[in-house]
Amino acid sequence: MKIGNIIVGQSGGPTAAINSSLAGVFKTAKELGAPKIYGMLNGIEGLLAGRYTDLNMQIQNDLDVELLKRTPSSFLGSCRFKLKSVQDDEKTYKALFAILKKLDIKIFIYIGGNDSMDSIHKLSSYGKTIGSDIRFMGAPKTVDNDLAETDHTPGFGSAAKYIGTSLKEIIKDAHVYGNNFVTVVEIMGRNAGWLTAAAALSRGEDCVGPDLLYLPEVAFDQNDFLAKVTKLIKERKSLVVAVSEGLKATDGRYVCELAASDDKYVDAFGHKQLQGTASYLANLCAKEFKCKSRMIELSTMQRCGSHIASYTDTNEAFGSGGYAVKLAAQGETAKMVIMDRVSNDPYAIAFRGCEIDKIANIEKKFPLNWLTNDGTLVTNDFLTYARPLIQAELTPIMVNGLPRHLYLKK
Amino acid sequence: MKIGNIIVGQSGGPTAAINSSLAGVFKTAKELGAPKIYGMLNGIEGLLAGRYTDLNMQIQNDLDVELLKRTPSSFLGSCRFKLKSVQDDEKTYKALFAILKKLDIKIFIYIGGNDSMDSIHKLSSYGKTIGSDIRFMGAPKTVDNDLAETDHTPGFGSAAKYIGTSLKEIIKDAHVYGNNFVTVVEIMGRNAGWLTAAAALSRGEDCVGPDLLYLPEVAFDQNDFLAKVTKLIKERKSLVVAVSEGLKATDGRYVCELAASDDKYVDAFGHKQLQGTASYLANLCAKEFKCKSRMIELSTMQRCGSHIASYTDTNEAFGSGGYAVKLAAQGETAKMVIMDRVSNDPYAIAFRGCEIDKIANIEKKFPLNWLTNDGTLVTNDFLTYARPLIQAELTPIMVNGLPRHLYLKK
Repeated sequence: MKIGNIIVGQSGGPTAAINSSLAGVFKTAKELGAPKIYGMLNGIEGLLAGRYTDLNMQIQNDLDVELLKRTPSSFLGSCRFKLKSVQDDEKTYKALFAILKKLDIKIFIYIGGNDSMDSIHKLSSYGKTIGSDIRFMGAPKTVDNDLAETDHTPGFGSAAKYIGTSLKEIIKDAHVYGNNFVTVVEIMGRNAGWLTAAAALSRGEDCVGPDLLYLPEVAFDQNDFLAKVTKLIKERKSLVVAVSEGLKATDGRYVCELAASDDKYVDAFGHKQLQGTASYLANLCAKEFKCKSRMIELSTMQRCGSHIASYTDTNEAFGSGGYAVKLAAQGETAKMVIMDRVSNDPYAIAFRGCEIDKIANIEKKFPLNWLTNDGTLVTNDFLTYARPLIQAELTPIMVNGLPRHLYLKK
Repeated sequence: MKIGNIIVGQSGGPTAAINSSLAGVFKTAKELGAPKIYGMLNGIEGLLAGRYTDLNMQIQNDLDVELLKRTPSSFLGSCRFKLKSVQDDEKTYKALFAILKKLDIKIFIYIGGNDSMDSIHKLSSYGKTIGSDIRFMGAPKTVDNDLAETDHTPGFGSAAKYIGTSLKEIIKDAHVYGNNFVTVVEIMGRNAGWLTAAAALSRGEDCVGPDLLYLPEVAFDQNDFLAKVTKLIKERKSLVVAVSEGLKATDGRYVCELAASDDKYVDAFGHKQLQGTASYLANLCAKEFKCKSRMIELSTMQRCGSHIASYTDTNEAFGSGGYAVKLAAQGETAKMVIMDRVSNDPYAIAFRGCEIDKIANIEKKFPLNWLTNDGTLVTNDFLTYARPLIQAELTPIMVNGLPRHLYLKK
């Protein structure tokens, strides 16, 4: 299998595993003899401005590969660039293909989520219409685990491991005074509650786990919430409630908007910045129950906590990056690498290419039949699904007492 | 050296190392042949209610000792019980000594911070007046590193390691889009800025570190802050600012109070709950600079992040607990174990007992001569001081993909 030049980019929100995917792309491209392996800087947006780097210069040896796997956030930088349709903006397509032609690119890999797969979909379709021989492949990435077709998504397992670990620690801390106390933990997830559900992984022989979970898939009923807390706090004294940032009230408003008066930001994709759900609910409990309450936002740390990354997750990320290159080298295009679960116990997955139009712009929600107790707890089916994804650690390489990362050479 | 019965308690805010101190107390007491080793449940407050446990039942073997070292929060539960003066409340003293007599206690160890050392001070003084033979010893604990006399305090090193690690990850995440962006990270520290200063440990070959630091030791000048951000954001695009929760404006008000309209809570010691400094400053930057901004509160995780605990710190915590027992066995009382730094490179410390009245109720502030750039950066002297404290890891014992903790048997 002999291949031409490759270019790879990273897009959307970073994860703890996205650079492991990049490492997989690089390693496989090198093994297959790609003459040049380029990295777009800040994704398609940067590439349009002529910004790219030679990855053979950035990743010089096997130690660099290992460091890259352990580096959080997007090593090449990211973007939230939304490619318009060809009808609306053919100029951008022409500019992009001109750059790809100049660099003699044969394989174009984009590591990202829904929005990024939309870019792969549009570019591969356009390439077809102009008779281009460039192969466009997607490598999956998102902490949200909301990509269609694939059993799960690289990035989710490490975030879930961070969340499970932090919840165990937070719950231990919350029980220390033994008095009436409500802790509300806010977890990422705009429309899909996979990460909030992952808080339940903390439950075990040595931890009671979160007392209540609130996912965006189920409308939030404030009266029912207060009734449940009233009942539980009598028995358990200290409650820990995990809530999704994107939780919506029964009237359709975001819960974080019920109190917030501060300005809200809108990102380039038109997504509102969601923050304040836990703050609102912690204040509500303090007022209703005259008890102490605390709000904790796991914030950015949950998506960049590479120091406690899941080995299973980062290894799958590495594999999916490499597999994207292999599929492209075999002549495939307009696909994203997905994972099929071969078996649960022992856990095994298989990589496969899936047509990109089945994935772009589609969100996979948390299955409602994995929720119980009016949607506030998860079933064992979810735990059986998620537990394998957090197994083992990609232990950090420590220098001077802190994890070492690979950094971009200018 | 033959010793009598021991009782040990934990008090104040938990840390990632406080249970390592407890493990040290237990191990040494056992080695010295203490017939009974009791643990107060929820400190003095619980003991007054007759709540205690037999530690030989809770910690059954060496694996339990290792698990206890790795368990965050206070294993025995904590309290924020403020012992009044004998003049005001002799009844409580009598009740406490009656319980100690009933259990035939010879050594009383309290693991805690300023407030807890005040309890040791008062109890040992009272014991003297009534001719008690019980020895009262303090073992130091606080993430804040604000205890007097000792070079540093167990708990600080692990929190500093968590903060340094998280800051490296947050800074990588913050630079991913390459556009104008201000991230404000809120770090614990009501009156002392040691933990916020620890954010600077993230700076190194692979990380630019935080751009600005704001400690409570220096009054916060909003105009100067805005001027500094205006200048830096032009050069660096993405800024990360670390601020102490207890930051105060030049007019003496807490910065978090400049915006907050929500109810504020007051704990049993009369401490106001401080939260919202980062939120206020992130909103301020968004308005002033019309840029994206983000606020991150490291919250409870920074004090209970035992999964990335410093080996140096937890080892010193273990040692200080054991040393407290040894000193008491040698006849010492009314002292707290402190650490003197013997040398920086190679790093070495020595334990020593220090009179409790030199420590109780005194706060050690961050030295102003370790601050530079109008108080917004730290000198190398601080880094030389703090770096040894975060060295090496007490690696978690992983079960089912998450760190295993020891839990209290009922």
